[in-house]
Amino acid sequence: MAGKQIVFDQSEPLTVPPGTRLTEAAGQAGIFINQPCGGQGRCGRCAVQVTSGQVRRRSTLRLSAKDVEQGYALACQTLVLEDAHIHIPAQETLERRLTSDLSAATIAVPAGYTYEQQSLRRIPLSLLPPHMDDQRDDWSRLALAIRQEIDLSQVSVSLPLLRKIGTVLREGNWQVTAYVALDETAAGEHDRPGILIDLQPGHVPDTEPLWGVCVDVGTTTVTVWLVDLLSGQVEAQAAEYNRQLRLGEDVISRIIFATKHDGQEELRTLVLQSINTLIDRACTKANLQHREPVNGGQTKPEYCHPQQIMKATIAGNSTMIHLLLGIPAGSIRLSPFVTAVNKLPVLTAAEIGLAIYPAAQIQCLPGVASYVGADITAGVHASGLDKTDLVTLFLDIGTNGEIVLGNQDWLVTCACSAGPAFEGAGVHDGMRATHGAIEEVWIDNHTYEPSLGVIGHAQPKGLCGSGLISLLAEMFLTGVIDKGGHFNTTLPTKRIRRRDNSWEYVVAWAAETQTGRDIAITYVDIDNLIRAKAAIYAGFTVLADSIGVPLETVAQVLIGGSFGKYINVEKAVQIGMLPDMPWEQFHFLGNTSVLGAYQAILNGNSQRQINAIADRMTYIELSADNSFYEAFTSALFLPHTDLQRFPSVAKVLADLSAQEVTQNGS
Amino acid sequence: MAGKQIVFDQSEPLTVPPGTRLTEAAGQAGIFINQPCGGQGRCGRCAVQVTSGQVRRRSTLRLSAKDVEQGYALACQTLVLEDAHIHIPAQETLERRLTSDLSAATIAVPAGYTYEQQSLRRIPLSLLPPHMDDQRDDWSRLALAIRQEIDLSQVSVSLPLLRKIGTVLREGNWQVTAYVALDETAAGEHDRPGILIDLQPGHVPDTEPLWGVCVDVGTTTVTVWLVDLLSGQVEAQAAEYNRQLRLGEDVISRIIFATKHDGQEELRTLVLQSINTLIDRACTKANLQHREPVNGGQTKPEYCHPQQIMKATIAGNSTMIHLLLGIPAGSIRLSPFVTAVNKLPVLTAAEIGLAIYPAAQIQCLPGVASYVGADITAGVHASGLDKTDLVTLFLDIGTNGEIVLGNQDWLVTCACSAGPAFEGAGVHDGMRATHGAIEEVWIDNHTYEPSLGVIGHAQPKGLCGSGLISLLAEMFLTGVIDKGGHFNTTLPTKRIRRRDNSWEYVVAWAAETQTGRDIAITYVDIDNLIRAKAAIYAGFTVLADSIGVPLETVAQVLIGGSFGKYINVEKAVQIGMLPDMPWEQFHFLGNTSVLGAYQAILNGNSQRQINAIADRMTYIELSADNSFYEAFTSALFLPHTDLQRFPSVAKVLADLSAQEVTQNGS
Repeated sequence: MAGKQIVFDQSEPLTVPPGTRLTEAAGQAGIFINQPCGGQGRCGRCAVQVTSGQVRRRSTLRLSAKDVEQGYALACQTLVLEDAHIHIPAQETLERRLTSDLSAATIAVPAGYTYEQQSLRRIPLSLLPPHMDDQRDDWSRLALAIRQEIDLSQVSVSLPLLRKIGTVLREGNWQVTAYVALDETAAGEHDRPGILIDLQPGHVPDTEPLWGVCVDVGTTTVTVWLVDLLSGQVEAQAAEYNRQLRLGEDVISRIIFATKHDGQEELRTLVLQSINTLIDRACTKANLQHREPVNGGQTKPEYCHPQQIMKATIAGNSTMIHLLLGIPAGSIRLSPFVTAVNKLPVLTAAEIGLAIYPAAQIQCLPGVASYVGADITAGVHASGLDKTDLVTLFLDIGTNGEIVLGNQDWLVTCACSAGPAFEGAGVHDGMRATHGAIEEVWIDNHTYEPSLGVIGHAQPKGLCGSGLISLLAEMFLTGVIDKGGHFNTTLPTKRIRRRDNSWEYVVAWAAETQTGRDIAITYVDIDNLIRAKAAIYAGFTVLADSIGVPLETVAQVLIGGSFGKYINVEKAVQIGMLPDMPWEQFHFLGNTSVLGAYQAILNGNSQRQINAIADRMTYIELSADNSFYEAFTSALFLPHTDLQRFPSVAKVLADLSAQEVTQNGS
Repeated sequence: MAGKQIVFDQSEPLTVPPGTRLTEAAGQAGIFINQPCGGQGRCGRCAVQVTSGQVRRRSTLRLSAKDVEQGYALACQTLVLEDAHIHIPAQETLERRLTSDLSAATIAVPAGYTYEQQSLRRIPLSLLPPHMDDQRDDWSRLALAIRQEIDLSQVSVSLPLLRKIGTVLREGNWQVTAYVALDETAAGEHDRPGILIDLQPGHVPDTEPLWGVCVDVGTTTVTVWLVDLLSGQVEAQAAEYNRQLRLGEDVISRIIFATKHDGQEELRTLVLQSINTLIDRACTKANLQHREPVNGGQTKPEYCHPQQIMKATIAGNSTMIHLLLGIPAGSIRLSPFVTAVNKLPVLTAAEIGLAIYPAAQIQCLPGVASYVGADITAGVHASGLDKTDLVTLFLDIGTNGEIVLGNQDWLVTCACSAGPAFEGAGVHDGMRATHGAIEEVWIDNHTYEPSLGVIGHAQPKGLCGSGLISLLAEMFLTGVIDKGGHFNTTLPTKRIRRRDNSWEYVVAWAAETQTGRDIAITYVDIDNLIRAKAAIYAGFTVLADSIGVPLETVAQVLIGGSFGKYINVEKAVQIGMLPDMPWEQFHFLGNTSVLGAYQAILNGNSQRQINAIADRMTYIELSADNSFYEAFTSALFLPHTDLQRFPSVAKVLADLSAQEVTQNGS
């Protein structure tokens, strides 16, 4: 047959024999098409658009009917029939089309944010100096000047600051900059109380940022965002494992350590070290970004120093907040499972031990119950669940799985202990979703060889949460493990092997890794992951059942938590962690806890809404519910004891099986 | 002539020759009549009542016409004429009649005080324990229970207390006692905010006192009253010299020490030592009074420990308050003489360094200006000046002289530096008005021998303020010194002598004293005292002049300050410290500063009234007024350059002179 002319976008026409795969043709034309699944036609990442001409699609997995109508085809599964023009979407566009709804929201300043919404105000003041005819005391003089600038019912001041105002006023020759924190809880914008938290000589230029920091204290991961409160912009982010991890991987073991081993203070110190280190690191990042040489080759004065951070909001689960504040958490662990406190007063950095400006006001966001903390109220707010009329399922998948079901009118919540596996902790080769983490895995269902997606396109170091889910799903779909998570040790691959008395699958050989050691997943890891996903699945099904809302009526599933960016909803459904619903109903939001803390630090209104969420939410105690244990047991399979609940997974299994027959037969 | 029969009260009749002095007759009857002035007929303390019969009164000094009409006579100046019945009033009654208006008010619980007025509440609570059906957090549970007991708009709590509530609730098996401080500034009795300041397991019995402490920080003397807030009763008092004294006797030298010698912290520590020692001492006194053996000879558990004191109010002049709180006071000393702060926020004991319950709320009362502090606002309130329609002059004579003129409608104030002489400091043999202090002196105008009144009827140790005034007046009236304060060195007495190049008058010889050393007053002491009294006199005359209120329209003079109990208004007029007005217009109120702090600790209403006084008072700066210096110079004489301003003193001088003539002629 005559060669066919293929034109990729603006490339020179290329002549290939009919039947040539589009990926091969592209390769000949010097064009690289990404094939994460190794050309199995399963990941959809090689999709191209056939703008004219005829092709044969061997598989349209991951393409919708509308996609096909618009000419989309999987390059790895599509053969040239006639002359054709092929458009290759930018990989980024493609990823967004396939995963945008699935990826963490990029941090945009909330629409409409202006500094006027900010309850921390930096106010330049020019005072009249005292005089024999005007002998008002320094504080009255200052307080009046502040109240002439902003509408306050009263302004208060601490003793340490009172001790320095006289000196600062005179040092600045009665030109000073006041930092005033307005009461966030006061409803209106007018006539609310304020606190002077700092006074500096002279007028701080408007070009200097006004720093705040948002903190999410996760059981496994601590995250810090450094924010310029003037612009609302996040200027730097930093995250690391919670240093408490070495004293216990989950909240229960931490509480036990705190109570039984008198470890309250040690735990408090460790998490403070994490936070303070991250704040330092975020400041360093911001400084690096703004390092500009000025006259004479000197660098600019430091852009941000931790002591300049004048405000913080903190989210985190109830145990983490208790431990951070040094409040005994023992009652959280024991029936009837109550916290010491859900709604914290405004505190100062000095009281807590945060290494920022000592009088900075710290708002710990409110929790609801022992296992539904401020991470969830913040997350619900950040997700917009509290403002939608759609029945919405919100999942925060961190070390604990917290689940909220509801809409703007009602909210119910429950918690289930998922463990830290999905954060890469407690797994042999687990790691956080940073450079070198395997975040995507595809396994060839003939060779059982994996294709890896690694963050930063680096040599792999370990597996992050999204990588683990992807790996688990692939192992199940390709038969490396069975529905119970047990290895098929008869498969013809060296990757399934026995080591240290346990079976494992080698994801990357030592020679390919950064560490020079094999990266593998063991049976124990798999068991951990299955238990974790089962807890989550059982949690939301029992929650929905308990209030009589069928899962089918759920219009959207919002997913928060510290998963990586490219979490794949398909894979999460395939392992039975998420309910089997159309993709477009899932929205992965990333770390909604810190996002809520970020919204709260910008806007008092957000803070009030988070308080309202805490007040409105009805907590349902799963441990008081036998049906939870039954649901959990049924979910200890891939994807579930009852495959009928997962029709899309059943279809993929069928497709793969058919493909195998076809290929074997071809 | 036949003997006359004299009956003293219920004694056996006594026959004496006519012409016998009543004091002699009483002596023969074995009855002791107190004669502090040594029988000169000047102190009036030997007054008796002739209920029947005839006597001859040689002098009626200090007796009013009405007294004479009622039969009163000075026993030392009265001769028997006929048979007579004589009633001897109890000395105490007599002293009160002569001096009650002049003595410090005894501390009575303010009329109508009930615990309901108290803003510190001790509340026994019986909580429902948490349950799987009631998983509220500990703090919400507790806060609701508190709000069910008292009407509060909200209740807040500090982090340190939050850290312990869970433990206390469980230790008390959900039976606890809450200590709640209501907001004093909130106007109404209902719906105001409160703060939980302590939580104790179990129910504290109603019989246990609820402790508060009132503090007056004087430049020279620190005074502490320990109060049971349940009954309102002052349970113990203690006072000592301010330990800052060794770093400067007046506020100016203290401020200089603080600023020039970096002594802020040292001064703060010293005054805290004074206060904390006094609190300890007051607790010990209260414990001693309540030491009762219980079964088995054991003593009762400690009645009061400083850590049980849950509230404090503090009065004092502006410099003392600044130094106590560690607030730089430098601007107080330098023109235009402004304080850092007049109205302090509510603080905690821990913030200040007070060694009582760390979270106890401390209210420092408000000042008005650099030299009119909280001691004056508290004093004005305690004196009732702010509630009278009489034009009233209020003098607080401590180290500084502060003067208030006004009534319920208007208040003006000024300050003049009197120095610490009237507190017994800065005077060679000065001391505080405690056991062994000479508080009253009478000098025989022939022999120049003194009669001494000593506190506790002990051997003398030194001279307190009232003793110094008394001594100065007597020396002047008897001619030991002239109107300029210079000794008449020609008088035939060994008591006027030269020592260490300076003249002095020996008040007590070494053999009579506790110390075994002579007690004397030197020319330098006299000069100090005259300058101090001149500053006070000039102060109120210039203040009255400046607002055009003639001194004659003043209906009453209220005197606060740390004078001793038996301050003698007559003597104070004789030295020209007080204006020459009828006795009954003077009222010595004692330490009105601590009295105001006492009223404020009991009743939030008092505290609000003191705040209102601070707001209403118009401060007049004497240093900006040339007329002050003139008035001061004119007052540097005994009693004044212009004797016409002191008609009563002129009369005494005339009387004494006439008496001398009579006696010389008899």
